[in-house]
Amino acid sequence: MCGIFGVRGHPDAVQLAQLGLYSLQHRGQESFGIVSIDDAGDAYVLRSMGTLAEAKSEELERHPGIMSLGHTRYSTAGGSSIENAQPVLVRSRGAYMSLAHNGNLVNAAELRSELENAGSIFAGSSDSEVVMHRLAKSTAATPAQRLADALGDVEGSFSIIAAIGDTLLAARDPRGWRPLCMGKLGDATVFASETCALDIVGATYVRDVEPGEIVAVDPSGTSTSHPFARREWKRCVFEYVYFARPDSRVFGGSVDRARRELGRRLAKEQPAPTADLVFSVPDSSNSAALGFAEVSRLPYELALIRNHYVGRTFIQPTQAGRDAKVKVKYNAVREVILGKSVVMVDDSIVRGTTTRGLVALIRNAGAREVHMRVSSPPVTGPCYYGINTPSYGELIAANMTQPEIAKHLGVDSLGYLSLDGMLEAVPDGPKGFCHACFSGDYPTQPPADPDKLRFGCGC
Amino acid sequence: MCGIFGVRGHPDAVQLAQLGLYSLQHRGQESFGIVSIDDAGDAYVLRSMGTLAEAKSEELERHPGIMSLGHTRYSTAGGSSIENAQPVLVRSRGAYMSLAHNGNLVNAAELRSELENAGSIFAGSSDSEVVMHRLAKSTAATPAQRLADALGDVEGSFSIIAAIGDTLLAARDPRGWRPLCMGKLGDATVFASETCALDIVGATYVRDVEPGEIVAVDPSGTSTSHPFARREWKRCVFEYVYFARPDSRVFGGSVDRARRELGRRLAKEQPAPTADLVFSVPDSSNSAALGFAEVSRLPYELALIRNHYVGRTFIQPTQAGRDAKVKVKYNAVREVILGKSVVMVDDSIVRGTTTRGLVALIRNAGAREVHMRVSSPPVTGPCYYGINTPSYGELIAANMTQPEIAKHLGVDSLGYLSLDGMLEAVPDGPKGFCHACFSGDYPTQPPADPDKLRFGCGC
Amino acid sequence: MCGIFGVRGHPDAVQLAQLGLYSLQHRGQESFGIVSIDDAGDAYVLRSMGTLAEAKSEELERHPGIMSLGHTRYSTAGGSSIENAQPVLVRSRGAYMSLAHNGNLVNAAELRSELENAGSIFAGSSDSEVVMHRLAKSTAATPAQRLADALGDVEGSFSIIAAIGDTLLAARDPRGWRPLCMGKLGDATVFASETCALDIVGATYVRDVEPGEIVAVDPSGTSTSHPFARREWKRCVFEYVYFARPDSRVFGGSVDRARRELGRRLAKEQPAPTADLVFSVPDSSNSAALGFAEVSRLPYELALIRNHYVGRTFIQPTQAGRDAKVKVKYNAVREVILGKSVVMVDDSIVRGTTTRGLVALIRNAGAREVHMRVSSPPVTGPCYYGINTPSYGELIAANMTQPEIAKHLGVDSLGYLSLDGMLEAVPDGPKGFCHACFSGDYPTQPPADPDKLRFGCGC
Amino acid sequence: MCGIFGVRGHPDAVQLAQLGLYSLQHRGQESFGIVSIDDAGDAYVLRSMGTLAEAKSEELERHPGIMSLGHTRYSTAGGSSIENAQPVLVRSRGAYMSLAHNGNLVNAAELRSELENAGSIFAGSSDSEVVMHRLAKSTAATPAQRLADALGDVEGSFSIIAAIGDTLLAARDPRGWRPLCMGKLGDATVFASETCALDIVGATYVRDVEPGEIVAVDPSGTSTSHPFARREWKRCVFEYVYFARPDSRVFGGSVDRARRELGRRLAKEQPAPTADLVFSVPDSSNSAALGFAEVSRLPYELALIRNHYVGRTFIQPTQAGRDAKVKVKYNAVREVILGKSVVMVDDSIVRGTTTRGLVALIRNAGAREVHMRVSSPPVTGPCYYGINTPSYGELIAANMTQPEIAKHLGVDSLGYLSLDGMLEAVPDGPKGFCHACFSGDYPTQPPADPDKLRFGCGC
Repeated sequence: MCGIFGVRGHPDAVQLAQLGLYSLQHRGQESFGIVSIDDAGDAYVLRSMGTLAEAKSEELERHPGIMSLGHTRYSTAGGSSIENAQPVLVRSRGAYMSLAHNGNLVNAAELRSELENAGSIFAGSSDSEVVMHRLAKSTAATPAQRLADALGDVEGSFSIIAAIGDTLLAARDPRGWRPLCMGKLGDATVFASETCALDIVGATYVRDVEPGEIVAVDPSGTSTSHPFARREWKRCVFEYVYFARPDSRVFGGSVDRARRELGRRLAKEQPAPTADLVFSVPDSSNSAALGFAEVSRLPYELALIRNHYVGRTFIQPTQAGRDAKVKVKYNAVREVILGKSVVMVDDSIVRGTTTRGLVALIRNAGAREVHMRVSSPPVTGPCYYGINTPSYGELIAANMTQPEIAKHLGVDSLGYLSLDGMLEAVPDGPKGFCHACFSGDYPTQPPADPDKLRFGCGC
Repeated sequence: MCGIFGVRGHPDAVQLAQLGLYSLQHRGQESFGIVSIDDAGDAYVLRSMGTLAEAKSEELERHPGIMSLGHTRYSTAGGSSIENAQPVLVRSRGAYMSLAHNGNLVNAAELRSELENAGSIFAGSSDSEVVMHRLAKSTAATPAQRLADALGDVEGSFSIIAAIGDTLLAARDPRGWRPLCMGKLGDATVFASETCALDIVGATYVRDVEPGEIVAVDPSGTSTSHPFARREWKRCVFEYVYFARPDSRVFGGSVDRARRELGRRLAKEQPAPTADLVFSVPDSSNSAALGFAEVSRLPYELALIRNHYVGRTFIQPTQAGRDAKVKVKYNAVREVILGKSVVMVDDSIVRGTTTRGLVALIRNAGAREVHMRVSSPPVTGPCYYGINTPSYGELIAANMTQPEIAKHLGVDSLGYLSLDGMLEAVPDGPKGFCHACFSGDYPTQPPADPDKLRFGCGC
Repeated sequence: MCGIFGVRGHPDAVQLAQLGLYSLQHRGQESFGIVSIDDAGDAYVLRSMGTLAEAKSEELERHPGIMSLGHTRYSTAGGSSIENAQPVLVRSRGAYMSLAHNGNLVNAAELRSELENAGSIFAGSSDSEVVMHRLAKSTAATPAQRLADALGDVEGSFSIIAAIGDTLLAARDPRGWRPLCMGKLGDATVFASETCALDIVGATYVRDVEPGEIVAVDPSGTSTSHPFARREWKRCVFEYVYFARPDSRVFGGSVDRARRELGRRLAKEQPAPTADLVFSVPDSSNSAALGFAEVSRLPYELALIRNHYVGRTFIQPTQAGRDAKVKVKYNAVREVILGKSVVMVDDSIVRGTTTRGLVALIRNAGAREVHMRVSSPPVTGPCYYGINTPSYGELIAANMTQPEIAKHLGVDSLGYLSLDGMLEAVPDGPKGFCHACFSGDYPTQPPADPDKLRFGCGC
Repeated sequence: MCGIFGVRGHPDAVQLAQLGLYSLQHRGQESFGIVSIDDAGDAYVLRSMGTLAEAKSEELERHPGIMSLGHTRYSTAGGSSIENAQPVLVRSRGAYMSLAHNGNLVNAAELRSELENAGSIFAGSSDSEVVMHRLAKSTAATPAQRLADALGDVEGSFSIIAAIGDTLLAARDPRGWRPLCMGKLGDATVFASETCALDIVGATYVRDVEPGEIVAVDPSGTSTSHPFARREWKRCVFEYVYFARPDSRVFGGSVDRARRELGRRLAKEQPAPTADLVFSVPDSSNSAALGFAEVSRLPYELALIRNHYVGRTFIQPTQAGRDAKVKVKYNAVREVILGKSVVMVDDSIVRGTTTRGLVALIRNAGAREVHMRVSSPPVTGPCYYGINTPSYGELIAANMTQPEIAKHLGVDSLGYLSLDGMLEAVPDGPKGFCHACFSGDYPTQPPADPDKLRFGCGC
């Protein structure tokens, strides 16, 4: 997954991009990048592994611009290197072109082969390089038409912010998989993955970039086009379930309100009548747990504390450190749990490893009964559209029945929200969402070799 | 403020100290240190600015020991340098001595002058160096007696973990200002500021080190002494209000339960009858806000989202970044707040700067009314005993009346918990607590030049 | 200027490349890079600013290969960035291609424009990217033919080492501007800018790659071709005068012997009959000064000492540090100089700044007379073929007469070696050398905007 | 070994100290430090591993002072850590004291035990901490008297620059083992190990600090005292042989002139009548080799080239890298050597490892005969007075006869300068020099456990 940000028409564009990326940091912590383009068309890029907070950005601040693009990239198993950090910045036909991409092109390998055979060269393994080459080849009259050319045969998910010459562009694939919003800050235009990035820079939300739309902003103003074949909307329901920040609006709906409603539905579908209290796995499940507590009329407690000072440091797997990975991140509040029958609400279970560690922690703190409730259906398949879910072999719900999962996790009961329940709970549902990872209903042909695909993914 | 940790008798002592410090990181992020002492009496120390997660600890792991001390130091305005990082490690009389200190010696300057006049030399400005010199001068027969000698004339707060030769020691000043607990992990003994550090290493809580007690652990076992003149207990109430982690027990009581009760009392003393909902300033006020909601029978909402990816990076104070400091850290959930009369619960107000920024954020997100409720009394004086509260000039409640504060913050109403209410809410109250920063009732003579004192402070 | 190295067929290829680059470090200290290609065709690149000695190469050592390319890049005024570090490594048509370039393509800008207009994208500003794009476009049957295609229309200087698939290639432009030699280490083949790089890895010198030749080494053996139009040789005489290491052979001749002879000639052409002694500006002029002393029958002294511990650190231009730049690097030996009439031999004078500082140093140490002798003619024009000489405005001999230069430098007499003297002194002279920077006799049309060219230069 | 520098009374004191250390860097590259003391008595210290050129000194430059001390420390086998970096800076009796030490206290361990028993604590293992404690204990009236007290019972070598309050002090042990000179820069006073440090800052040499003298500079002027018992002078002859820079004067004599004379004597004592040419092991033996060539009437050639770009990087000991250590640093000039009978002049042979590698290099380049000539006698014992020569077991001349050494090195003949020859060659000889490492004539009782001593050494 990734977060993208772009602004045009503000003297502090680079500072705004930094602020914007701070607020989108939850969408990716592997690497980040910021491009600054000034009035004279000169461009500068800072790309760095890790998060913005760890980076030295003095050099960036010496290159102010009126247009700036930012990207924050998710940590992936393979292909983690500075070569894949975005935004990409190249020179083509005498001008700079830059591009930040959130999503995953299902046919990137095919498009790449075509380009290689025609003599294109590739420095890294990201999808964005494919788009960049296609952009450079287009001889269309306007930046928007060039971007439309470049994205024409592309299959898969993309929310893209690009700069071509002095034009800032925002494009969203026709199924609208990934969010992309547009705001105004005085005369400046801002694009971002989530509205929380508009809030932090003080911009006003205008509207979402629509599925299939390209918005172009240049000195003469803002124009829009819908160059792609119309498709059924397939907005990613996982953004509501887990990924987006609760203070954001995505796909026009409030993430916090969506999660609250998912929790309420969950309580209706999967009550825990014998429980004494409800708590969440902080922080992404807080809203859902509150919804569950509200409907269940059970007390909401803070039974798990999360330590935010944990970095990427490796703790030695000694006798002492065996369970350290979960324990370094979470601790149970014994006084809340001791002797109680508890409901633990989480937003999703992917591999089950952390959940299992948490259940042990809760039991160890003296819980009498542990009832696990999940505010989404079982994850039974990988995502090919930009979320870094693991392959079938690692997905617990692709390999075990629900009773087996309950036993494996060590819980007294386990309840998932139904697919229908989830789709009815989210704003503007139940139609128009992609739920392939829950339902197996993939909007595109699944790739022949999905692992290969995900290695090449832009997010 | 600081966090301290010590362990004796475990082959993974250094790993345990690392884990322990992870869980005490909230007590200080300016610098940290870990000392390893092996069977042969060889010692190694890693001290580093910043947090454990940012540090390179490979070298440390090449120096395993059976005894280890750790310290995490709070960020202070002045005197922030590696020279002041702890634990202190020195060689004296042919053996290593090491010391980690949480607290503040009120008469450190006098003791230091005496030592300097007798020819002692000082490398840094921390109190711990004073204790170390006194320890080196004592010719008492046992490590515990030497530590008692060193701390004999000391006035002020100290929770100390020390290693002298092959003895691990834990000492707490007779007023018991700062917490210090003791646990067992198999045959190994563990000391730590808070019980959350016992949890993370898998140790069992045994008891608190008592005010005025020195516990010594050596190859022959554990012994205890009470060498100091008995004093009235003055445990720091601010540990319950704000400082300690909610999953810890300090002074024998649960921090989460204490805060929940502080919130309940607050709701009784300072109700907000017209309000639609309650929310907290995350994360330290969550328990109190839940207590407030419970008694008020108002919905508890997540109206403020905190960004945990923020580092120490400086954001340029440009036009755009003016309010950036608060906005980088917090955002409001508009859909929760819009058109509502809200209660914002915080644990304390010190300078008022952040609170004022938060109120603006909340108002901007459309709140109709903002009622501020604080789960402790107004902070009217500095702390000389280990909490880094600012001087009188910066404390909002030392310079404004409550109506003035309310106006300054921009709230519709402002309610603080009373001193009596606070002291009755905390476990084992209302007697035996220090509340000088709230009441002006200082257990010792306030120092002539408090700023000077705090510069020299060990925490 | 740059140094290049390549090896194929050795299990320690990466270590050999590291050693080779150590010995070529004098050819460039701005940045360096090493590419490793293993048996399976996987490739890894380490590129870093600064010198090899400063770099962390652990990661590189985790990627052993049987083929390795290295490049060390000269410090240039503009365009100093990691984007321009070499070797370039890209993926094309399913295989890795890598390229290290020493030289400068005079028509790079035109070739680049053509490529950009055809849709190619450029990440940096180096010439090598131009060659790489052309290489990718060629559909010729063999790697050597592809390289010949890529370099066909190229005007300017290139010594190139490249890897295409499992073939290692070495190419030299038809005028032979820059040196390139070939050696054997057991079954492995080694290419390098200078023979000192063969010595350090223990390889035996076989022969030079000839001007206009492409040598290809693949699993089936070594093959050679001469695909370019034949041209008059224009080997860079400055390699003998200053650039190459004295222990190297370049263009088939010994650098040390060449410099010795230049010094002898200089003594004949420009004697200093009244002088007491001769000394060199260490270290590049040592051989020439010895030759001067030998013919003059004057004692050779060590009157200037060079400090090799100086880095790139900036010394503040305070009152004290005004002359610091020269003084940090050199000091005079007063006891050698005091009261003496001295001959200072240097290999060349470019801007004159350092020379002027040295003369002041020598005078200050008590020299009675200072006679400057230079073992090459006045530098009157910039180099467009790979040496980073400055533009006309900065070249002292392009702006002053010899008497003016002597006065500016503060010397009692000034004598340059003649153009003919230089060309007769170097091995295999006087024909077949480029001496454009001394004579203005440029082998190609000088570029319209030479500054622009040199910004785009590959070295 | 170490280099020391101090200046008082100049507004750019810190920059001068930086320049001074640059020129003394050959005396130590393990770590360095600079202390700045301003008019108000505030002090700042930068200490860093490695050399000045590698360090970040921005922070230092934010702390200008009128008094500054610098120290550069030699790389030693054990005890290499930042704790041992100098200058030491402490607070004592309300003022800063700082100290930089070149030398080695033979009775440091005893003095340290006494101090530890009296309750002093030690942070590192350097001698300087011992001196600092003794300084702090002295209650004498003046800084000079306090320094005299501190150094009273000290046995061994010291050249010390110290700051106590606003007084800058320079002290030299009564045997005068290590050099220390004094200069003037306008009104400012400068002290340094060698005169090359005066040259770089533009100071004029005034005189040496005499053996047994303490010079004190304070606002009222300069005063001198000779508080120590008079001893026979034992200036270190190795400073002339190898250690000092050729452009320096030490002990009142020119290092370059001394080395030239050592080479001349060597040619007389150990001629090489059949040889064709002479060359030196650069750079320390250049002067001696010139002296040898002059007397022998043999040509002086540059047959060995030294690579100055080599850092501390570790080269893997693979097949390829077996001889890499010598080859990375040196290469032979084949064209000079091939078929020739050569004299290789070096200043000394310690372990013989490098020499052996060089002989192999020379033979490999085609030398017909190799005659080794050494401009000092065989090193048969360790130094306890500040030079880091290895213990008996590692000294080749302590374990082999001269014929055995010749065979081991692979030379056709081997000739050392005699002890008398050396002592008569150096300025102000033959009396008043320490030559213990050559003669076994130790001026003090050799320590019981010399290895232990050297671990504790200040240099």
